[in-house]
Amino acid sequence: MAQRILNFVGGAWTDSSAEVKQNVSNPALGKVIGEVVMTPQEQVARAAETGHKAYQEWRKVPVTDRIQYLFKFKQLLEANIDEIAKTITNEAGKTYKESVAEMRRGIENVEVAIGTPILMQGYNNEDIASGIDEHMFRQPLGVVAAITPFNFPGMIPLWFMPYALATGNCFILKPSEKVPMTSVKMFELLEQAGFPKGVVQLVNGGKEVVDAILDHPYIKAISFVGSTPVAKYIYSRATANGKRAQCQGGAKNPVVIMPDADMDTTTRIMADSAFGCAGQRCLAASVAITVGEARNVFTEQIADAAASRVVGYGLDEKAQMGPVIDARSKSRIEQIIADGEKSGNANVLVDGRGKSVSGYDDGYWVFPTILENVNPESELARTEIFGPVLSLMHANTIEDAIQLVNNRAYGNMACIFTTSGYYARKFRNEADAGNVGVNIGVAAPMAFFPFSGWNESFFGDLHGQGRHGIEFFTQTKVVVERWPQEWSRQF
Amino acid sequence: MAQRILNFVGGAWTDSSAEVKQNVSNPALGKVIGEVVMTPQEQVARAAETGHKAYQEWRKVPVTDRIQYLFKFKQLLEANIDEIAKTITNEAGKTYKESVAEMRRGIENVEVAIGTPILMQGYNNEDIASGIDEHMFRQPLGVVAAITPFNFPGMIPLWFMPYALATGNCFILKPSEKVPMTSVKMFELLEQAGFPKGVVQLVNGGKEVVDAILDHPYIKAISFVGSTPVAKYIYSRATANGKRAQCQGGAKNPVVIMPDADMDTTTRIMADSAFGCAGQRCLAASVAITVGEARNVFTEQIADAAASRVVGYGLDEKAQMGPVIDARSKSRIEQIIADGEKSGNANVLVDGRGKSVSGYDDGYWVFPTILENVNPESELARTEIFGPVLSLMHANTIEDAIQLVNNRAYGNMACIFTTSGYYARKFRNEADAGNVGVNIGVAAPMAFFPFSGWNESFFGDLHGQGRHGIEFFTQTKVVVERWPQEWSRQF
Amino acid sequence: MAQRILNFVGGAWTDSSAEVKQNVSNPALGKVIGEVVMTPQEQVARAAETGHKAYQEWRKVPVTDRIQYLFKFKQLLEANIDEIAKTITNEAGKTYKESVAEMRRGIENVEVAIGTPILMQGYNNEDIASGIDEHMFRQPLGVVAAITPFNFPGMIPLWFMPYALATGNCFILKPSEKVPMTSVKMFELLEQAGFPKGVVQLVNGGKEVVDAILDHPYIKAISFVGSTPVAKYIYSRATANGKRAQCQGGAKNPVVIMPDADMDTTTRIMADSAFGCAGQRCLAASVAITVGEARNVFTEQIADAAASRVVGYGLDEKAQMGPVIDARSKSRIEQIIADGEKSGNANVLVDGRGKSVSGYDDGYWVFPTILENVNPESELARTEIFGPVLSLMHANTIEDAIQLVNNRAYGNMACIFTTSGYYARKFRNEADAGNVGVNIGVAAPMAFFPFSGWNESFFGDLHGQGRHGIEFFTQTKVVVERWPQEWSRQF
Amino acid sequence: MAQRILNFVGGAWTDSSAEVKQNVSNPALGKVIGEVVMTPQEQVARAAETGHKAYQEWRKVPVTDRIQYLFKFKQLLEANIDEIAKTITNEAGKTYKESVAEMRRGIENVEVAIGTPILMQGYNNEDIASGIDEHMFRQPLGVVAAITPFNFPGMIPLWFMPYALATGNCFILKPSEKVPMTSVKMFELLEQAGFPKGVVQLVNGGKEVVDAILDHPYIKAISFVGSTPVAKYIYSRATANGKRAQCQGGAKNPVVIMPDADMDTTTRIMADSAFGCAGQRCLAASVAITVGEARNVFTEQIADAAASRVVGYGLDEKAQMGPVIDARSKSRIEQIIADGEKSGNANVLVDGRGKSVSGYDDGYWVFPTILENVNPESELARTEIFGPVLSLMHANTIEDAIQLVNNRAYGNMACIFTTSGYYARKFRNEADAGNVGVNIGVAAPMAFFPFSGWNESFFGDLHGQGRHGIEFFTQTKVVVERWPQEWSRQF
Repeated sequence: MAQRILNFVGGAWTDSSAEVKQNVSNPALGKVIGEVVMTPQEQVARAAETGHKAYQEWRKVPVTDRIQYLFKFKQLLEANIDEIAKTITNEAGKTYKESVAEMRRGIENVEVAIGTPILMQGYNNEDIASGIDEHMFRQPLGVVAAITPFNFPGMIPLWFMPYALATGNCFILKPSEKVPMTSVKMFELLEQAGFPKGVVQLVNGGKEVVDAILDHPYIKAISFVGSTPVAKYIYSRATANGKRAQCQGGAKNPVVIMPDADMDTTTRIMADSAFGCAGQRCLAASVAITVGEARNVFTEQIADAAASRVVGYGLDEKAQMGPVIDARSKSRIEQIIADGEKSGNANVLVDGRGKSVSGYDDGYWVFPTILENVNPESELARTEIFGPVLSLMHANTIEDAIQLVNNRAYGNMACIFTTSGYYARKFRNEADAGNVGVNIGVAAPMAFFPFSGWNESFFGDLHGQGRHGIEFFTQTKVVVERWPQEWSRQF
Repeated sequence: MAQRILNFVGGAWTDSSAEVKQNVSNPALGKVIGEVVMTPQEQVARAAETGHKAYQEWRKVPVTDRIQYLFKFKQLLEANIDEIAKTITNEAGKTYKESVAEMRRGIENVEVAIGTPILMQGYNNEDIASGIDEHMFRQPLGVVAAITPFNFPGMIPLWFMPYALATGNCFILKPSEKVPMTSVKMFELLEQAGFPKGVVQLVNGGKEVVDAILDHPYIKAISFVGSTPVAKYIYSRATANGKRAQCQGGAKNPVVIMPDADMDTTTRIMADSAFGCAGQRCLAASVAITVGEARNVFTEQIADAAASRVVGYGLDEKAQMGPVIDARSKSRIEQIIADGEKSGNANVLVDGRGKSVSGYDDGYWVFPTILENVNPESELARTEIFGPVLSLMHANTIEDAIQLVNNRAYGNMACIFTTSGYYARKFRNEADAGNVGVNIGVAAPMAFFPFSGWNESFFGDLHGQGRHGIEFFTQTKVVVERWPQEWSRQF
Repeated sequence: MAQRILNFVGGAWTDSSAEVKQNVSNPALGKVIGEVVMTPQEQVARAAETGHKAYQEWRKVPVTDRIQYLFKFKQLLEANIDEIAKTITNEAGKTYKESVAEMRRGIENVEVAIGTPILMQGYNNEDIASGIDEHMFRQPLGVVAAITPFNFPGMIPLWFMPYALATGNCFILKPSEKVPMTSVKMFELLEQAGFPKGVVQLVNGGKEVVDAILDHPYIKAISFVGSTPVAKYIYSRATANGKRAQCQGGAKNPVVIMPDADMDTTTRIMADSAFGCAGQRCLAASVAITVGEARNVFTEQIADAAASRVVGYGLDEKAQMGPVIDARSKSRIEQIIADGEKSGNANVLVDGRGKSVSGYDDGYWVFPTILENVNPESELARTEIFGPVLSLMHANTIEDAIQLVNNRAYGNMACIFTTSGYYARKFRNEADAGNVGVNIGVAAPMAFFPFSGWNESFFGDLHGQGRHGIEFFTQTKVVVERWPQEWSRQF
Repeated sequence: MAQRILNFVGGAWTDSSAEVKQNVSNPALGKVIGEVVMTPQEQVARAAETGHKAYQEWRKVPVTDRIQYLFKFKQLLEANIDEIAKTITNEAGKTYKESVAEMRRGIENVEVAIGTPILMQGYNNEDIASGIDEHMFRQPLGVVAAITPFNFPGMIPLWFMPYALATGNCFILKPSEKVPMTSVKMFELLEQAGFPKGVVQLVNGGKEVVDAILDHPYIKAISFVGSTPVAKYIYSRATANGKRAQCQGGAKNPVVIMPDADMDTTTRIMADSAFGCAGQRCLAASVAITVGEARNVFTEQIADAAASRVVGYGLDEKAQMGPVIDARSKSRIEQIIADGEKSGNANVLVDGRGKSVSGYDDGYWVFPTILENVNPESELARTEIFGPVLSLMHANTIEDAIQLVNNRAYGNMACIFTTSGYYARKFRNEADAGNVGVNIGVAAPMAFFPFSGWNESFFGDLHGQGRHGIEFFTQTKVVVERWPQEWSRQF
């Protein structure tokens, strides 16, 4: 029977009388496993008001006490990682191992946010002029909200939540309506961790909930991760309402393969990057640019790797890759491949369309796909496919390769494989991307570094994670003080 | 004869064939002293393109070399401070002493930006996993622009320019069309300092130039200071275009006067704060909230101070206060006073309307004005007057006073006068303002602190000045690198 | 039966064949409860060598993994806080409540050290010259050691240990031979936490062990807390051996009481500060300097507070104060009082000598003592008594009071009680002490601030706790790199 | 006629009645050019007292004002760089170009210290417990002193002086008695810059002056650069007197040359590193370790480079290398070579002994020398020669090479030449040296990085330059403050 997904507002699990609901499916089974309510606007408002009220007390709780809740939350996440990982696999499709890895990256953010007492410190100078001191203090904003995507239902909320809470804000999460169950699991643990009522809340739904969040005056800051068009929409609407916003969009991540790279290792890493999580991550390698002699050998080997990757149900131990998120996504990806082929902008070297996993015939399967000779000027070369599809291009020199890398709207990740210190330095210095890998397939910043998308992959200035998280969720208050001697009372 | 104001684009002083021009007046004389062109959109585009091209080289100039230009610029500003100050007084109306002080605060920002080699440093960790290192580097954005107001034509451009340049960006200034001559003086010095062509540029004009800047894809970041409605407009349009933006708006700054404060000193400081620069600063005290017994004595003394303040031409040594910026501003201010009186929301205790300075009959004079018993709920209490008008309110307790302070849309400054450590701490902790003063009339942060407006006084997250300036004008690039042993060649 | 205290070396509890042993007593019972071995030099050397070997691997463990041990250690400390606190009370004499509070302050340091991934980051600049980059990395030192005193057997080792371990060093603790049992408890938990063998070690003993540690070439850094003569000895010998050292010494902490302070609260706080932990803390208030009218009322009230303080066995709930550490200490304190009285340098207003607690006749009891009219120029005024003895002095003005404060060799703490912002600012700016309190009796810095003794209270530059801990236990490595294009291989 | 070198004490150039004097020679001419007094102890004491008195005011000068003196000093240094450089060449022997380069590196430190307003900031947290705030302020130490060596008479004093002064300390310089004239030139400029009397002082002399400085209680911190035995002596004596100290010693700097490095460039860089400044720098390459096939080609080429280097008077434009500092140094170096040869621990491949420069027969000439097959276990391999002598060793693998690098007492610099990212990363991670170069011959940290010697090359924890300079010259003061509501007065 399908689970009914509730909201968590004011410290209680609340159902909604709303009539609009939406199904949640297991993408490997192609079967409905839950039902999520589309929260009406007035209930979003109630969450904002509840958060606003809770904030009046929460901001006064000493930061050393606030982080104790995060210590408990970390323990609970670790103790329940198996159950959460299974939930992720069931609603998002990725393999169990990928789900566990996702949670570990999420937990790292809880660990970093535990350092908030130092990270939140302001600064000061004595005697900026004779007898006048100046201080900067960091204070929280109030209620803040995150709107998160389907592909990392466990990790991405944790890019924001721990920092927001530790710095003294109240936090509202609106997860993707495709994967609401992971959030429910995490909020059960937040409840156990004992956060005061209203400090951390969950509201489910789609665009109407998003708009209600963007427009509510009590909500001071918006963190978003999703596609670029939606990121732009949210950045624009949140800022038009005077809020601060950090909006992470899509990607098309190029990887340059120099001929001096070890091809066996490079291929293995590239296959993991391109096909891991069925290509549904904003740091998936989606374009491989071979330089010089690297072309033939890499093409051959990556084609083999693509063809031999084991696709299956994520809870099956042998599965190396799961399905894509839903039927619409499957047909969109297949259409892009077909259009690319038809237009002559690519050859389909390995074709992942029209295949199925035995015993899971209703799953949303797209198998690893390799597109060869992709025309760098084509629409295909620029579109984020968000599926297990790797496009191959070629360049004669490192300079040409970097030009291909920089000739795109996105700027989330760019990687290079080489043994040469010179190529590596030139690439990291010149590539227009905020997350750069050297002999790395998925250049995901640790939680103590900002997740640094550039260009159309990010709108805002302060990113998620680490120090940026602390800065985004606090405002600076400068105090200039003078204590004139002549004012002091006499005895 | 009226000076013709040119643009500085691509390293050259360029006139414009544009037919739209606007007069620049000396507000004390009420006389036209200049003529400024409204640059057409395509010439703004040319500046953006020129900056974009110059950027390709400028970003590669070592930061230690970039700051050498700032050393020269500082020397030149100091050597020419008298001339610049006179220019400010002539086009903006403030006293010569105020103009000099303004420039000193501006120069401080050049000094702080000289520290960019350290301030711009990224960070790193070795072995985030075995054999994998992670680095964050700060890189510049490209071309950036500032749009600045009439009230501090010398200082406010310097809140942004030195940081933008030192971090490797190319910078475009669009000053207020009411006060373009100060920028011309400063750009003559920038030219002398020898910045490469296109690195720092000046385009004059009004809303059309603003829009051209906001819409041009080569311009990556916008810094603005002005009124709140315009700040909102710019924040919204810049962000809709995907840019980062920091927009500083208006203010209505309350000051709480506790009965334990020394009234003589408090009055003197308050008069300077409320009437200095004819009240045309975003940190002017505009509301005085007396607590308890402070009421009578403060009211009496501040009325005397207002009535006795010497108003005059800013180049006249005796003048303590100059005119407001233009005739429209004068009539707007007088109308607000009249409406407040008429509606019963205030008594006019000292009336600065209808007065003139002998020998300067055409000047835009508004004399110091005190409004008593201002109704906190009235429109008058919330409106930014931006003239030498101080509103008086009263509260029985510190708690009531703080409530009055926080019951407003703006959040630029809030001050308290007291001898009590308890009142001071309570106030700085609880007042909703980013710039807080304790026994200070104008709580302007030093250049090494962010100018921290809150609420409707600021849109964005990173403010002007200091570390915030460095962060706003750079983007983080995270590099994850691994150098597998097995890849190393054998000999 | 007396517990035999073992060492913990190379991951095992090891007895020593050494013949030299020393008794450990419960100071409230005056009874032997343990027997601690004086480890011979060659066994200290073995610990150093074992640590040195373990270091080769431990430094390579990613910092994110190293902090996982601290997470476990924090949990274990909290789960066992009751047992540890009882151990502290039994061997150090303080009350159970004081013992618990001590552990909480210790645990805070574990929490802060969990932030090491960020705190340990190095920094970098690209293009310091064209094509040349520069990085600073922080690397651990090797084996480091702490030598800690009897008065906080649980907390003080934690001022150093968590930072040393998190940054990748191996750590050796030499606790006071008077209170070795608390360390044993903590090392049982460290063992449970699973640190690799040799990473964290315990060696017991006295001066011979200290010398062996100071002289061993594998031990790179020394942290010490104790009396000033010993601190000087250790600083001098460690540095003569080329080591880095941070040595915290004794104190004589003055507190200025202004007439505008609330006397009831001041007295209560002062009694806690002077008599808490039987005055055996380096942040105990030991001199009260009344200003103006504060004299009479404070003298009267503090005498009452001293006389009525409940002295007793620390495990007895009613006890507000326990015994001093041993018989020698008791007689030393009593002798100082006697000498002061005899020499005419003080009146004994409340005399704590010659008293006993019923049922605990063999305990080392000194009751709260107040010395009046202490001569500021006398030896008595300068000597650290390290017992429950408060000296009273008087000054006519704040200036005179600050002069008395600064006229001493120590510089650990100085406090002021006042309602005046002016007095507070003047005092914190001018008092020669690294830990300053305003209306605070024990100005102990939180774990995210350095414990900042000055003058004869500290030798070194980097203190314990927080960022200083990270810096002390790491060395900076600067890397300048250039990758000439012409060197890159051609394909 | 020989110039008489004066002291600069209390703002005046003072001669000394002391009878002990010492000659200053031009090492290229072998001729006396000056006479420097050995200041008696009581005059050192007078400087300390004068500094102590000046400190009382200087520490109160706002930091923004203090840095204005540094701005002036930078301008003056740049305006007079030619004259200072000639002075350096004349008393220290290096080429004019080297002297100019030295001064530029020195001036960089003045530039960095100009950033002190930010670098000196303390930090804070509000509500560490309910209603309690905590601040850390940085305050200066008092009088501090630097004792500097002969090899960089212009640069090394500037590693310390600007930071000490900007942070509010008074500074005393004791330069090498071999090169006192450069300091005189710099102090003439400091005088012109207008520092208040006693803030910056110069005392000349030798060991007696050093001891007087080390022992004077008003001098709180010692910065030293020189040989390791003297560094140890100073570290030990300064710390025994309770001071903080940072003491930089000698070096023996190994460079690893991998076979994949470009040999032409490597040789050129290595020759500059080994023979620049006649090898008299603590970052000179003194051991070249070739790996694998690099051996033959490097040996041949470096021998050619050594043999063809133009040695001469530093003011002669053609000179690429000057003399060593004095006759004693010349014979010491020649003896080391002779002993190495005689003992069979090295072959003299290129012999720089017994040569002279035409027209400068009395100069202290040692020509570039290459020792081949140096026995790594010999004394020769460990001794700092401090002359233009490069020792060659060989290793079969990178691992062996790193072992040779780490098998030494010093740890100032280690470099590698390679095109491989793997070798570079392994080397920088594992080499035991604080200053590491990758394809760099002299890995001198920029002024915004600490000059990070390790092991016997440095005693202390905080190094010279940048943030370390700020930290070394300030002490942290932590303030914990509470303002109880109940204490506030009622109206």
